[in-house]
Amino acid sequence: MSELKTAIATYDETSITWRGKDLVNDLLGKHGFTEILYFLITGRMPTATETKVMDVCLVTLMEHGMTPHAIVARLVADCNPGQVQIAMSAGLTCVGDVFAGTMEGCGRLLEAGLKEVDAQAWCAQVAADHRSRRKALPGFGHNLHKPDDPRSPRLFQVAREAGVEGRAIALLETLGGEVDKAYGRHLTINATGALAALMLEIGIPPAIMRCLAVTSRAAGLTAHLKEEFETKSGREIWRLVDESFAYVAPEEG
Amino acid sequence: MSELKTAIATYDETSITWRGKDLVNDLLGKHGFTEILYFLITGRMPTATETKVMDVCLVTLMEHGMTPHAIVARLVADCNPGQVQIAMSAGLTCVGDVFAGTMEGCGRLLEAGLKEVDAQAWCAQVAADHRSRRKALPGFGHNLHKPDDPRSPRLFQVAREAGVEGRAIALLETLGGEVDKAYGRHLTINATGALAALMLEIGIPPAIMRCLAVTSRAAGLTAHLKEEFETKSGREIWRLVDESFAYVAPEEG
Amino acid sequence: MSELKTAIATYDETSITWRGKDLVNDLLGKHGFTEILYFLITGRMPTATETKVMDVCLVTLMEHGMTPHAIVARLVADCNPGQVQIAMSAGLTCVGDVFAGTMEGCGRLLEAGLKEVDAQAWCAQVAADHRSRRKALPGFGHNLHKPDDPRSPRLFQVAREAGVEGRAIALLETLGGEVDKAYGRHLTINATGALAALMLEIGIPPAIMRCLAVTSRAAGLTAHLKEEFETKSGREIWRLVDESFAYVAPEEG
Amino acid sequence: MSELKTAIATYDETSITWRGKDLVNDLLGKHGFTEILYFLITGRMPTATETKVMDVCLVTLMEHGMTPHAIVARLVADCNPGQVQIAMSAGLTCVGDVFAGTMEGCGRLLEAGLKEVDAQAWCAQVAADHRSRRKALPGFGHNLHKPDDPRSPRLFQVAREAGVEGRAIALLETLGGEVDKAYGRHLTINATGALAALMLEIGIPPAIMRCLAVTSRAAGLTAHLKEEFETKSGREIWRLVDESFAYVAPEEG
Repeated sequence: MSELKTAIATYDETSITWRGKDLVNDLLGKHGFTEILYFLITGRMPTATETKVMDVCLVTLMEHGMTPHAIVARLVADCNPGQVQIAMSAGLTCVGDVFAGTMEGCGRLLEAGLKEVDAQAWCAQVAADHRSRRKALPGFGHNLHKPDDPRSPRLFQVAREAGVEGRAIALLETLGGEVDKAYGRHLTINATGALAALMLEIGIPPAIMRCLAVTSRAAGLTAHLKEEFETKSGREIWRLVDESFAYVAPEEG
Repeated sequence: MSELKTAIATYDETSITWRGKDLVNDLLGKHGFTEILYFLITGRMPTATETKVMDVCLVTLMEHGMTPHAIVARLVADCNPGQVQIAMSAGLTCVGDVFAGTMEGCGRLLEAGLKEVDAQAWCAQVAADHRSRRKALPGFGHNLHKPDDPRSPRLFQVAREAGVEGRAIALLETLGGEVDKAYGRHLTINATGALAALMLEIGIPPAIMRCLAVTSRAAGLTAHLKEEFETKSGREIWRLVDESFAYVAPEEG
Repeated sequence: MSELKTAIATYDETSITWRGKDLVNDLLGKHGFTEILYFLITGRMPTATETKVMDVCLVTLMEHGMTPHAIVARLVADCNPGQVQIAMSAGLTCVGDVFAGTMEGCGRLLEAGLKEVDAQAWCAQVAADHRSRRKALPGFGHNLHKPDDPRSPRLFQVAREAGVEGRAIALLETLGGEVDKAYGRHLTINATGALAALMLEIGIPPAIMRCLAVTSRAAGLTAHLKEEFETKSGREIWRLVDESFAYVAPEEG
Repeated sequence: MSELKTAIATYDETSITWRGKDLVNDLLGKHGFTEILYFLITGRMPTATETKVMDVCLVTLMEHGMTPHAIVARLVADCNPGQVQIAMSAGLTCVGDVFAGTMEGCGRLLEAGLKEVDAQAWCAQVAADHRSRRKALPGFGHNLHKPDDPRSPRLFQVAREAGVEGRAIALLETLGGEVDKAYGRHLTINATGALAALMLEIGIPPAIMRCLAVTSRAAGLTAHLKEEFETKSGREIWRLVDESFAYVAPEEG
């Protein structure tokens, strides 16, 4: 006999239940999207602090202009008229190791560091270790925002004003200081690093941090796809890229 | 020269701008996820009514138990450890013509009906027309919820209490009455039908209604994937399905 | 009890069976890829004619330069290092209604026409009908190849030399003649139209024609991804597209 | 100015060129699918040996019954009628780290080993190292086929009969012997391990080995989707899985 179990949802002909609550009578219109997302993930309604922090995390990653996510979504939409879920789905695969992976990596690092007694020593060690192995430190550096990612300090501020305990944020800041020392130059704490700290503050495990990035970016792609239907950029993007490639014929042998 | 234009976002080394607002100073921590999603789509901040309606729409479609979306996400997660965006992306392709397509179809129908002078006559005509052509009427009927989808009346109530004008909702209710007459039996207004009406009330065009379904379901799949990492159902689902198929050998020829 | 049945494959601890044949002893090394693909689809090994036609169909759609498929695959590969199946999967979604849909549409049209007694009259009718409704005729016209798609006559020639009966091809050619008369100008039979005819000649139903397009394009994307790993174009494509978009700020209100 | 270059393909209004050859006059009908795939990847036509080995590699991974790939494809097809590329694309994401990743991992291992002077010593070292670190050895072991994967010896035989040099195969066999010694029990060389060796014999780099697995499985999914359209299993799979999950209500707090 199968032992499959789920605690998320069930239904019958006249009702739908999410984690023990009746969707129609207990949830719809009584709790917001961010609250219910937290509730579905964790099994309990968030505090006001947790809701505020979760919400700002979901906002931050919604949009960053003409990124691969948006370009892919526009191209795929042009190939699949009327099937916009495909464009969304394809665009969301760009939330991968390069973009959101850093959030997850930074989250795991901080999660480990929070168990250490001497945070400062641990940070110095981590910085030195990554430096000597020439390994990218997740959550640090940004190819577009220099010298600092403007989102990170604001995220820390919003979370603190919302009343988080602040241990993960403080640890990331300490790590930032040690990184600058170890590398001999300033490396910014980027938004994915800051978000990893915020999510840890409210109990979101690193394993699903990039699910939240996907959810957030899905929202952002909605705006891109509305614009795509109005302006039809997909065909033009194709032409532009096609014309930018020079064909190199093989040498005669 | 390229004529490509976007009104959604831009950035420079020290700032990010979404539709004319500075992300860090004007948006983060000052507006919620639902508000900013509406803002990114339409270019203006929603009223309290619009925010409330958008929010309840995003909640409704988050979750419905062990649907194809969740099953696919769990199977793909098991094949791609550490790459949870792939599981999300594959699961979200199930938001297709069968599930969210009905929302879009109902939205286009209502959008057309709202331009008619005699709503009642138009509804009677639409019902009779679908009935005689034996064509499914988008937004009506549900394979699991009988006799009525419990979400629809609650959605109408929430929207009305939030202060919508109510023309699209009223039209859908009128259509429901005419459908029951034309078919000689009661067909429920299902949740995707109700959501189509709510989204029209706040100015969301049918073309992107299923983008919002994708965003909403991405949130729901986050909960499924957290549970998947804890309970490891993917392998068991595979075994269960595999064992349920009987192999039929070809007849000797 | 479940009634699920499959005739495709089964296995036990020491053997694998595909449609009644032992993979290891009957198939591996004894039949080629194209033969076995036909065998898995239809349940019987193809004739030499069928193999030849299937093979040329699989070749034709492999590659067409820097199409959306290739651009998407390169962008997604750059975001997901080491997970090249995601890049393939995302790129293959571009085999949609615009590209391969025409093949399926043309296949369905020809399938209907083959049942008609008076082919010429049917063709004239179809041409006139699409013309008057200003509806695109699947399998006709090409945005890049003018006045003629060079692949189509060669495909007809290869199939005829391989020994097909030729009814579907002849019907498509007749249709082409009637189209030119009805439109008052020459519309080329494009490669997807020609492929639809070839596939019908060997018994491939329209419903899975685009599956074969996906298989074929998967092969082509393999070459693109090898080149991508060597030349790293994904980041440059992103930069190029990003810089080509002008940001339009909202007007002050 | 952009420096983007491709050596794969170009086109003009009347011709299409793949790696310096005219598609219509030089390739269509003159070379088979497997040959042209090899040609597109490497830039030269394969020898008869290379064609034979490539072909058997493409056949081997086409099909293995009701795997996650097939289950996902059937579920997604049911949600997206008429858009079979989405079902293919979603199913192909199951070619991930768990299935094809072992092929790539084994390929990289063998590639490194082929540079060693003392193959036997290197194999003993690799086996001991994985054993002591309790790390899975890519290309060894199989959850369904015991004690041996029946495909591997046949693949070696086909490749040798086709005339490969045989260094990679011999190295894998040597590694197999050392593995059995180090582990004190027999671990089978599985099909993905054998395929990695065969692909190295014909010069296919590990980085694109899973692209070929995707291409091969796309062929296999074509058969599953044809069967799906005839037997409609997707809805039944959903019902079966849904009913197998028990809902666990939260404890009262």
